Amino acid sequence: MAKEFRPKARRPRGFQDRRGAQLAAERALVAKIAAVYEAWGFEGLETSAFEYADCLGKFLPDQDRPNEGVFALEDDDQQWMALRYDLTAPLARFVAENFDALPKPYRRWAAGPVWRNEKPGPGRFREFWQCDADTVGAASPAADAEMIAVACAGLEAAGLKAGQYRININTRRLLNGVLASIGADDPAKRLSVLRAIDKLDRLGVDGVRLLLGKGRRDESGDFTRGAELSEADAERVLAFVTAGRGSREETLSALSAVAANADTEAGLAELGAIDEALGALGIGAAQARFDPGIVRGLEYYTGPVFEAELIGSPDEEENVIRYGSVGGGGRYDDLVARFTGQLVPATGFSIGVSRLAAALQALGEQQADGPVVILALDQTRMGAYLAMAQELRAAGVRAEVYLGQSGMKAQMKYADRRGAPIAVIEGEDEVKKGVVTLKDLKLGAALAKAIEGNEAWRKGRPAQIEAPRAELAAAVKRMLAEGGALAPSN
Amino acid sequence: MAKEFRPKARRPRGFQDRRGAQLAAERALVAKIAAVYEAWGFEGLETSAFEYADCLGKFLPDQDRPNEGVFALEDDDQQWMALRYDLTAPLARFVAENFDALPKPYRRWAAGPVWRNEKPGPGRFREFWQCDADTVGAASPAADAEMIAVACAGLEAAGLKAGQYRININTRRLLNGVLASIGADDPAKRLSVLRAIDKLDRLGVDGVRLLLGKGRRDESGDFTRGAELSEADAERVLAFVTAGRGSREETLSALSAVAANADTEAGLAELGAIDEALGALGIGAAQARFDPGIVRGLEYYTGPVFEAELIGSPDEEENVIRYGSVGGGGRYDDLVARFTGQLVPATGFSIGVSRLAAALQALGEQQADGPVVILALDQTRMGAYLAMAQELRAAGVRAEVYLGQSGMKAQMKYADRRGAPIAVIEGEDEVKKGVVTLKDLKLGAALAKAIEGNEAWRKGRPAQIEAPRAELAAAVKRMLAEGGALAPSN
Repeated sequence: MAKEFRPKARRPRGFQDRRGAQLAAERALVAKIAAVYEAWGFEGLETSAFEYADCLGKFLPDQDRPNEGVFALEDDDQQWMALRYDLTAPLARFVAENFDALPKPYRRWAAGPVWRNEKPGPGRFREFWQCDADTVGAASPAADAEMIAVACAGLEAAGLKAGQYRININTRRLLNGVLASIGADDPAKRLSVLRAIDKLDRLGVDGVRLLLGKGRRDESGDFTRGAELSEADAERVLAFVTAGRGSREETLSALSAVAANADTEAGLAELGAIDEALGALGIGAAQARFDPGIVRGLEYYTGPVFEAELIGSPDEEENVIRYGSVGGGGRYDDLVARFTGQLVPATGFSIGVSRLAAALQALGEQQADGPVVILALDQTRMGAYLAMAQELRAAGVRAEVYLGQSGMKAQMKYADRRGAPIAVIEGEDEVKKGVVTLKDLKLGAALAKAIEGNEAWRKGRPAQIEAPRAELAAAVKRMLAEGGALAPSN
Repeated sequence: MAKEFRPKARRPRGFQDRRGAQLAAERALVAKIAAVYEAWGFEGLETSAFEYADCLGKFLPDQDRPNEGVFALEDDDQQWMALRYDLTAPLARFVAENFDALPKPYRRWAAGPVWRNEKPGPGRFREFWQCDADTVGAASPAADAEMIAVACAGLEAAGLKAGQYRININTRRLLNGVLASIGADDPAKRLSVLRAIDKLDRLGVDGVRLLLGKGRRDESGDFTRGAELSEADAERVLAFVTAGRGSREETLSALSAVAANADTEAGLAELGAIDEALGALGIGAAQARFDPGIVRGLEYYTGPVFEAELIGSPDEEENVIRYGSVGGGGRYDDLVARFTGQLVPATGFSIGVSRLAAALQALGEQQADGPVVILALDQTRMGAYLAMAQELRAAGVRAEVYLGQSGMKAQMKYADRRGAPIAVIEGEDEVKKGVVTLKDLKLGAALAKAIEGNEAWRKGRPAQIEAPRAELAAAVKRMLAEGGALAPSN
């Protein structure tokens, strides 16, 4: 016989496998945010993973060649298809295709993976989840305000507390007004200025000042050419982008002093209307503020833009730790018009699920317990073990029987690896006495940790009790409650 | 300026967009089945959408060329990647890649889309969801029985009642034994026999008899060549595949009379052990039976195979309506060995989410209501409307404000399209009186339906009440309860 081909088992480059507690946390996050979106009247939509390449367009951040940055292939009818790179482009296609059949405004939420064909790097994956809400067909600033408010509600449902996050708001119209006021009409110059502004968080005012002027040399010696604004123009831009204040009202009044032309007037009116609607929705200064330094990369934004920022607790030196953006959005009035020519105003917000989950974990979310594990010490009594598991499940306790062939020690190790709070043992002795032994593995682990490095703990037995077989479920539930173990949800 | 390119908005061929109630039903289904899997101690896993093509193998039903039937593309490092066509092949890759780090047995559940590059047809999509549970590293028939039992629990959690479904069980070992007893060792002959058996449901005993013999001409005149068994061998096969009886015990005893060799002995012993474990798990004859006619297409099965069948209510002439298979699975002991050479016994069950959801809908599942819609009759009072929506959400009622620019009539039509149970109206009169008007749209719709075709209903007003503005939430909740509307879940 020919030598068998054995492929090497390997995950594709730049992709992730997620399992257990990490995956459960992300899924729970999506479920909580989706419940908020539903409560706010958004309707679920799941479009296909593929779109025709011409429908997707070329709105991917920092990509200006078609098919650049996406996973594309040719279908057998010679049409190019690509996997979606976000949930907004498919929404625009869906609305254009089904315009007459949809209620207008069309409020939809969506959650799912998106794919980007980029060079993988640490923490930079080619597949990740987004969870979006959008309102298509509403030009009102109230719709933008609602996006901000529903994002706040979603982040809070996900477990963030007041003061742990903030939505920063700006509008493209204000940026356009400031660019007009310094005569930056040339697209290349506009782009240099916007890129410089976008680095405010990372480089501070002095760094941005250099990038607005001649340019900046970084620590490694690399030189970035600047936008070559005059000193006065650079200061005007800086005064604008640093006009953010504690409350939205204060920022609006600071901004009105900076530049005055048709665009800035329109921008300020827009932000004023958003502020009013946010007030009606109960969104205070701590949750959402105006920040003229927010740019947002995607080219399709036409008006207000939003960015959700996570804020950690102050450390010992009272420095606030920033985790960066966990979501964003804005108004994109031209995206449906790309297909139909008809202007359809739209606004939306996208929460980056994986990033938010990672941040929540860093903020100290609790690890969920595994199931109760029933050891299988005697293969001829398998039926009795299976029946025990059914009893526990019927009582609302997650449970399983060890189904391998190994001995006691390996089975206990298995229970540990599963994060089991309790191991149920019914050996020969227990059968004779009509009891089961319940080992409290969480207590055992805690004891082991408390006396870490001290061999004495080996002599002490981890907490365990005997319970009459007939009272198995009740005894397990009692031990789970006493041990402070998380009650299983079903 | 150059004429703008306007792509035609169109969904790719063979793909679906799903929205609203249909999507919600499918998502709820996955959540319910996942909760069962978790309760049974299975741990969630989400692998990447892509796998390297050599890792996927060529186990796709009815495909024997590599890359046939999958969506594949070449990565920029010249490795071919393909989207997964099921959730089992990625599991085998994951286990082989992470073998040492996993608890063994490794129990995992997974839910997500899979992709098949097939010719699209009615009801035949190129992207659909599966929801699987698998135990890897357990050779025990108890593990197979558990798969059957957890499938029963999952289908019941999804909303099926006893008698609406059944798991049909067989084992490849029995089939092998019967094939050996008629001397069908040649792979081509084996395949013809198995294909003939697989058509029992559709063609009946007489049709299969023809296919086991010379061949069969169908109604259109097309001729299918048969397996060319002798008459005696054909009858032996038929006696075997029709040996299924009401209870598992009866089938086992009927089967033991049909053919006796090493394979059938092993197969019967295997089914006997599964029967015993199913008994311990409380799975009766109505839920799971042995059916020697079950073949299952996937080539990787090595032992027991399962198929979940939906059974409709008997119609007026007492014919039971069959919806066909909504899931299946079996034992595949060789799939990890493909990578490592090391035999790792495994068994699993996959539920076809879309098909099950469609069947549940046909069985008469209730349509969920949309959100309460607050009309926006005066744009200057938008803040007041937004605040009402927040009050309703805080009281646990799904609610939204109409955010378009249209008049009263269009807004009422919008509320209808959303499936809103109630429209909240606060016009000039209501503001003066300090009240809101609540229109019971479900009652309105019911009245309209009751007097369908009769124009008289237009004169009657749909049920509506006035409530003090301060009692908005309480009044809405009362109307929802009275109207028999489904209580919102949050």
